[in-house]
Amino acid sequence: MTKSSTYSLNSAKIAEATKEWLTKRGVKTSQIAELVIFLQKDYFPDLTIEECELYVEAVLTKREVQNAVLTGIQLDMLAEQGMLLSPLQEMIENDEGLYGCDEILALSIVNVYGSIGFTNFGYVDKLKPGILKKLNDKEDADCHTFLDDIVGAIAAAASSRIAHRKQAEREGRVGPPID
Amino acid sequence: MTKSSTYSLNSAKIAEATKEWLTKRGVKTSQIAELVIFLQKDYFPDLTIEECELYVEAVLTKREVQNAVLTGIQLDMLAEQGMLLSPLQEMIENDEGLYGCDEILALSIVNVYGSIGFTNFGYVDKLKPGILKKLNDKEDADCHTFLDDIVGAIAAAASSRIAHRKQAEREGRVGPPID
Amino acid sequence: MTKSSTYSLNSAKIAEATKEWLTKRGVKTSQIAELVIFLQKDYFPDLTIEECELYVEAVLTKREVQNAVLTGIQLDMLAEQGMLLSPLQEMIENDEGLYGCDEILALSIVNVYGSIGFTNFGYVDKLKPGILKKLNDKEDADCHTFLDDIVGAIAAAASSRIAHRKQAEREGRVGPPID
Amino acid sequence: MTKSSTYSLNSAKIAEATKEWLTKRGVKTSQIAELVIFLQKDYFPDLTIEECELYVEAVLTKREVQNAVLTGIQLDMLAEQGMLLSPLQEMIENDEGLYGCDEILALSIVNVYGSIGFTNFGYVDKLKPGILKKLNDKEDADCHTFLDDIVGAIAAAASSRIAHRKQAEREGRVGPPID
Repeated sequence: MTKSSTYSLNSAKIAEATKEWLTKRGVKTSQIAELVIFLQKDYFPDLTIEECELYVEAVLTKREVQNAVLTGIQLDMLAEQGMLLSPLQEMIENDEGLYGCDEILALSIVNVYGSIGFTNFGYVDKLKPGILKKLNDKEDADCHTFLDDIVGAIAAAASSRIAHRKQAEREGRVGPPID
Repeated sequence: MTKSSTYSLNSAKIAEATKEWLTKRGVKTSQIAELVIFLQKDYFPDLTIEECELYVEAVLTKREVQNAVLTGIQLDMLAEQGMLLSPLQEMIENDEGLYGCDEILALSIVNVYGSIGFTNFGYVDKLKPGILKKLNDKEDADCHTFLDDIVGAIAAAASSRIAHRKQAEREGRVGPPID
Repeated sequence: MTKSSTYSLNSAKIAEATKEWLTKRGVKTSQIAELVIFLQKDYFPDLTIEECELYVEAVLTKREVQNAVLTGIQLDMLAEQGMLLSPLQEMIENDEGLYGCDEILALSIVNVYGSIGFTNFGYVDKLKPGILKKLNDKEDADCHTFLDDIVGAIAAAASSRIAHRKQAEREGRVGPPID
Repeated sequence: MTKSSTYSLNSAKIAEATKEWLTKRGVKTSQIAELVIFLQKDYFPDLTIEECELYVEAVLTKREVQNAVLTGIQLDMLAEQGMLLSPLQEMIENDEGLYGCDEILALSIVNVYGSIGFTNFGYVDKLKPGILKKLNDKEDADCHTFLDDIVGAIAAAASSRIAHRKQAEREGRVGPPID
């Protein structure tokens, strides 16, 4: 379509929107940090929520992650408002088990710190601890078909980053920054 | 959200919608078949358009492909109507280069016949032959940010299927069916 | 390198080798089937081991799966024999947490029936039930860095196939064959 | 297998080995940089080889990339020496078209800077410009089944990094570092 003549990407706006949309949909950074603690407590018992929040923030600075968050939340909101066309509307509205585009977007988030995060993603996506249980509640009027996978994926990616950084610390290297 | 009590997946409807939405968005099976010919003519000079159409039809029967087609086209249509929220609206409307969710959905299509299709996907996505050139035309009022990647991915997947089947024929096996 | 003039792919040999190598490395189809039961018993309580074995066999007929199985087992065996070069030898020998090529090959297996299998893969890869516990035992002289991920991935893919087929049965369609 | 009691990951060694193995297999950073120029010259005509080399170096610092490079080159070398088991030996030795584990490892490299690199990977993998043509030469005694895909993937990832950085420059942000 005709490119708006004034279009130019504003990265700060995209980063802000990512945080705002997560907040508006009921997800706090601290709740994702709790998932990270859940995944990592056996390996790093000293991890604090505050430290994990920094890792989550770091994940959220990645453009690939921002794109997936915005796209997934948008689809959830449109499904909630009944504005998608049938039969896509019904599949997303009902979190159809054979619909996997939510997992696909989630995997693109996990990937930003490499393949070592796949396992953690699958694990929280199956067990649905903490905020994931709330997002996955089918009894209320909200639709979080994409968001619950996305939040699990952010926690898994943050866990991968922790693994890389803790190794750097063990080796006395500066390593990747927390944020 | 509250599951509609009457919801049950109707696979035939999803398969039909996939074909209908592609047609409505200006993409004919024969045009995807032409992309397949473009990709495979050096390896299988005797391939006909009719045969390639059967391979394309086979790709379109896969649930994973149908999900990606419906989701991508839906996002394109909503962007065209200006119904997405900013800044996602502007990114999709302008086919932003740093937005990669279109490539992600496309890759899930390529994957249905394995990783050998990645190369073919990238090649047509870069060269934009045939229908891809038309879809990618920025001068008209249509938005095909997702669809052009999706159509290239379907052609790449069909090419992978051909490679598997031709090998089966060489070995005198029955091999995977055309459709 | 110079192609052997006599080379031509023999698909039957690759399929046979896949089964033989799994057997030689201590993995029986029935043990993978038990993982499938573990993953699916809550959804389909009537599933039998025999039925699940057929689904596992179906996964193993896929070329993409065969390639990953052979490549992963070969790397495990070479690591066991100390024949890889340092530092790759040490990473695979010690199942290094920051080495993710095993997860990557596993994901290519999960992908053959679509993205809905990611969750199941991560879940068994974390919990290590049944045969996965044995493969993952660090106390003996065997190296199964690749194989334990591969076996979990085959079980996850078989579970995806079950989900597709059971839906087909619900709809009174013929659906994808068990084997 | 029994973990060597003295094992501990040495990240510096893995980074060094990655560069050494590439060099030993005949690939210079400058040759990968030429592929980046090939991919990016239409968008950024002022790019120099020296700048592109810095981007390539940045890609090579990523652990995920290092793992894939070492694993792929190791398999190539073993195939060259005839030390893999049949039928895997023949498939890798002959760069079998239906064997896709090389593309899978390559994609894990492309992924480190997100999905926008898929297209560039496929494009150079098909056209085989520069060093890729030499690696892909079937007439000599070398086997580069994995390496040619890996080198193309490094060039594609470097191109993605350029796209991210040039956007940051346009916006007056500091952006991701070159190296």
